[in-house]
Amino acid sequence: MTQTENTPAVQDTPLVPIEDIVSLCKRRGFVYPNSEIYGGVAGIFDFGPLGVELRNNIRRYWWWSMVQLHDNVVGIEGSIITHPRVWEASGHVENFVDRLVECKKCKQRFRIDHLPPENLEQNKCPNCGGELLEPRTFNLLMETYLGVIEGERMKTYLRGEACQNIYLDYDNVQKSSRMQVPFGICQIGKAFRNEVTPRNFLFRQREFEQWDLQFFVHPSEMEKWFDYWKEFRFNWYQGIITHKDRMRLREHGPDELAHYAKKAFDIEYRTILGWQEWEGIHWRQDWDLSRHSEYSGEDLSYTDPLTKERYIPWIVETSGGVDRTFLNLLLDAYEVQPDPTGKDNPRTVLHLHPWLAPVKVAVLPLQKNKEELVKTAKGIHNNLKRFMVSQYDDIQNIGRRYRRQDEIGTPYCVTIDFQTLDDQTVTVRERDAMSQIRIHIDELMPYLLERVTWK
Amino acid sequence: MTQTENTPAVQDTPLVPIEDIVSLCKRRGFVYPNSEIYGGVAGIFDFGPLGVELRNNIRRYWWWSMVQLHDNVVGIEGSIITHPRVWEASGHVENFVDRLVECKKCKQRFRIDHLPPENLEQNKCPNCGGELLEPRTFNLLMETYLGVIEGERMKTYLRGEACQNIYLDYDNVQKSSRMQVPFGICQIGKAFRNEVTPRNFLFRQREFEQWDLQFFVHPSEMEKWFDYWKEFRFNWYQGIITHKDRMRLREHGPDELAHYAKKAFDIEYRTILGWQEWEGIHWRQDWDLSRHSEYSGEDLSYTDPLTKERYIPWIVETSGGVDRTFLNLLLDAYEVQPDPTGKDNPRTVLHLHPWLAPVKVAVLPLQKNKEELVKTAKGIHNNLKRFMVSQYDDIQNIGRRYRRQDEIGTPYCVTIDFQTLDDQTVTVRERDAMSQIRIHIDELMPYLLERVTWK
Repeated sequence: MTQTENTPAVQDTPLVPIEDIVSLCKRRGFVYPNSEIYGGVAGIFDFGPLGVELRNNIRRYWWWSMVQLHDNVVGIEGSIITHPRVWEASGHVENFVDRLVECKKCKQRFRIDHLPPENLEQNKCPNCGGELLEPRTFNLLMETYLGVIEGERMKTYLRGEACQNIYLDYDNVQKSSRMQVPFGICQIGKAFRNEVTPRNFLFRQREFEQWDLQFFVHPSEMEKWFDYWKEFRFNWYQGIITHKDRMRLREHGPDELAHYAKKAFDIEYRTILGWQEWEGIHWRQDWDLSRHSEYSGEDLSYTDPLTKERYIPWIVETSGGVDRTFLNLLLDAYEVQPDPTGKDNPRTVLHLHPWLAPVKVAVLPLQKNKEELVKTAKGIHNNLKRFMVSQYDDIQNIGRRYRRQDEIGTPYCVTIDFQTLDDQTVTVRERDAMSQIRIHIDELMPYLLERVTWK
Repeated sequence: MTQTENTPAVQDTPLVPIEDIVSLCKRRGFVYPNSEIYGGVAGIFDFGPLGVELRNNIRRYWWWSMVQLHDNVVGIEGSIITHPRVWEASGHVENFVDRLVECKKCKQRFRIDHLPPENLEQNKCPNCGGELLEPRTFNLLMETYLGVIEGERMKTYLRGEACQNIYLDYDNVQKSSRMQVPFGICQIGKAFRNEVTPRNFLFRQREFEQWDLQFFVHPSEMEKWFDYWKEFRFNWYQGIITHKDRMRLREHGPDELAHYAKKAFDIEYRTILGWQEWEGIHWRQDWDLSRHSEYSGEDLSYTDPLTKERYIPWIVETSGGVDRTFLNLLLDAYEVQPDPTGKDNPRTVLHLHPWLAPVKVAVLPLQKNKEELVKTAKGIHNNLKRFMVSQYDDIQNIGRRYRRQDEIGTPYCVTIDFQTLDDQTVTVRERDAMSQIRIHIDELMPYLLERVTWK
C-alpha cells in the first residue's frame, strides 16, 4: 500500500480544543446531538450529511485493507441482540462493571477508577470536600427484553462489545468459507454501554461503533501473527493521519494485562486530552473459544487437515473504534491558518486524507448568471458525481466558496471560467497548498480519480 | 442509469422454497442463525462472509443512486437509542401494538390480524379447536434503560422504525447543509420490533435494517414528487431483479390508508409466500414534522427564501427493508438447472446482478502444482483484488470450481492454463450463459470493471 506517500504534509499546529470540533461538526453537518429538539440524550449522537460520508469512507477503507486485500481474512455482520448466555460466557454479566461513589453532601457521583488517589484515601469529594458514601457496583450492559408475554419475557443485553459475534459464528464461518487456520474474521458494528459519565464528544459514548479483527492461529505461530497485525494496524493509522508524531505504540504493563493475556499493545494518539487509546492489539490466547465451548457445550476446537492435530485456536485481536477514528481524524486534520493578507480572515481547513474526505470535488462556475458557464459546469459535475462525491456550488464569490470547501476538507475545487469556453481547460485548486493548475476537461476525471480513490 | 440493460435474462423458473435459500445461506456463508451454539434466538440472524459482501453492495448501490446522484438528497446516520418522547410523538407508544389471543386448551398464541375469520367468529383455536381467551394488547417497541442508578434510570426504546431520526435531524440538516425545499434526507439503519411471531427467515425479524428517504416539499408540489419517487423506486428494483414480472405496484385502498395519508403504494414482489410488500411509497403530508413540533415545542416550519412563505413541509416517504431486499434478491436469483448431460448433477446458480454479486471474479489456475500457472494466476488475483472482490481457488477440477462459483453468483471465472504461458491470454467464463472467451491479460481488468461496477 502507498497510503503514506499520499498524505499531505502540513506544518505542526497546536492541539485542537474538542469544542472547536464539536462546533464545526454541528455547523457543517458532520455530527448533531441526538434528539436535540427534545433536549438531547447524553452520550448519543447522530451523523449528518458530511459525517455519514466521512464515516462510510473510513469504514470502506478499513474493510478494503483488512478483508478485500487479505486472502486469509473474511468479514461478518452479526446482530446487536444475542442470546443472554453469551454475556455470561464472556464474563460481562459478572465483570463488566463500574464502581461508583456518591458524595453525601453534593450528591455528585464518581467512578472510583477516575478519582484522584488523595480523595479516595481521605474519602473526600473532589468537588465539594464532602464525605463519600460506600462504593456501589453497576453493570454497563444495556438490558432489553424479547417476547411480549409477561412472565415469559427473556431478559437479554445489547452487545457490550461487537466481537462476541465473531466467536459465536467462528465455527460456521470456518466451515462455510472453507478457511484453514491461520485465518481471520472482521466485523464493523455497534455496541452499547451504560456509561456513567459519557463525555468528550464521540470519545466516550453510550452507543458507538467498533471494528474488530479476530485472527485465529496455531499457538506456535502466535508470536509471528501478533507482530504482523501490530505492525499492520500501526502503519494503517499512520497512513491516514497528518501528525505522525502524535501517535505511538504503548505496551501494557503486567498490571494492565487480563489474566489470559501474555501481552497487549495500545495504539495511542495524542490530543488535547492527552495520550488516549485508539486501538488495542491483544494476545487473547484460547480464552474466548474455550469459554464459549464450555458454556454452550459445543466443541469449538479445530482439526488441522494435514497433521490431524486437534486444538482450540489462539486469537490475535485488533479492536478499535469507528467513532474514535472519526474524532481523531478531525482533531488531526483541523487547522486554523492566519490570514496571509494580514486581515482578520483566518482560513479553517481540514487536512483530511483525500481518500477519506467526505466531498471529493467541488465544481464552481465563476458566475452563476452566465448560461454557458453554468451549462459547462453542470455537465462536469454530472459526469464526476457518478464516480465520486461532487458538490456543485454557485453561491457567492470564488474565494468564499474555496473557504467553505476547505473547512469540510474537500481536496479539489474545479473552477469553470471564460477561458474554459475558449480552450476547454479548467482550474483545479488543491486544498492544502492552495496551488492551482489548468487542465483540459478530458483530463479531469483521471486526474481526480488517481488522487481521491485508494488502490 | 442503465441498470436494466445489464440484467441477465433467464428463462422463467419455479418459485423457490424459502428452505432452499435458508440452506444455501447457511452452507455457503450468507446467513447463520444468531447465537446458534446457544440454541439461537428466534427472528435474529448474523450475516456471514458472502452475506456481508452482498449486503454492502446492496447498501452502496442504494446510497449511490439515492444520495450521490441526486443533488437534492443528502444522507444521515442516526442513533438506535433516542429520547423516549420521540416515540410518544410518533404515536408508537400508543399505537404500535399487536393484539393477541391465547388458546385456553393448547396455550398457543395468535395475532388477531392473522387469524382466519371463521376462527375469530367462533372463538375457536385454529390449531386444536379449543376456546380462545380474551384478546390482549402488546406493544412492539423494545425497551431499554439509560443510566445506572436505580430510581434515576430512564426507560427508552430501541427505535421501532429508523426514519424518526430524519425528522429529529431535519432542522439541523436543512440549516447545516444549506438545502432548500424541495430536498430529501436518506438513511440506512437498524430497527427493532418485538415481533410475536418472527418467521419466514429474513422476512419478519426482530432486528432488521431499513432504508428510508424522506423528501420534503411544498404542498403544491406534492403530487409531482410523489410520482417521481414512486417511478424511480419501482425502476430501481426492476433494474436489479431477473423476474421483472414478479413485481408490481399496488395502490392502498381507502381502508388501508393512515388518517393523514392521501395515498400510498406498495412495491410488491411475488415469492412462494405470495405477493408481499418490498417497499412503501407514502404520502405523509405534514404529519411527522407537525407532531414533533407539537411534542418538542421546537418550531419545525420552513421559510421559503424567495416568497417568505412559512409552512411545515409535506413529506414523500420511500421506505424499504435491506434484509427483505437481500432475501428477495436471493429468491429472485436462485435457480437449479438440470444436468445438460442427463446425469444427476444439477447446476445451482444465483443470477445476481453483477453489480451486487458478493464475489466479482474467481481466479483459477488449471492445475495447482504447476509453478508457472500458479505464479501467473496469483499475479492476476493480486492485481484484481485491489479493485474488486476476487477469490483465488485451486481446489479440485475446473468444473467443480465453476459450480462452486455459480452457486454463490460469481459472474466471471478466469482460468489460467498452459496457453496462457504461451500467449498471455486467459479464459473468461460467464456465469449465466456459461459462455467462454479468451482475452489478453492486459484487457482483463477493463473488461471486468466495465461489467461489475455501476456508473
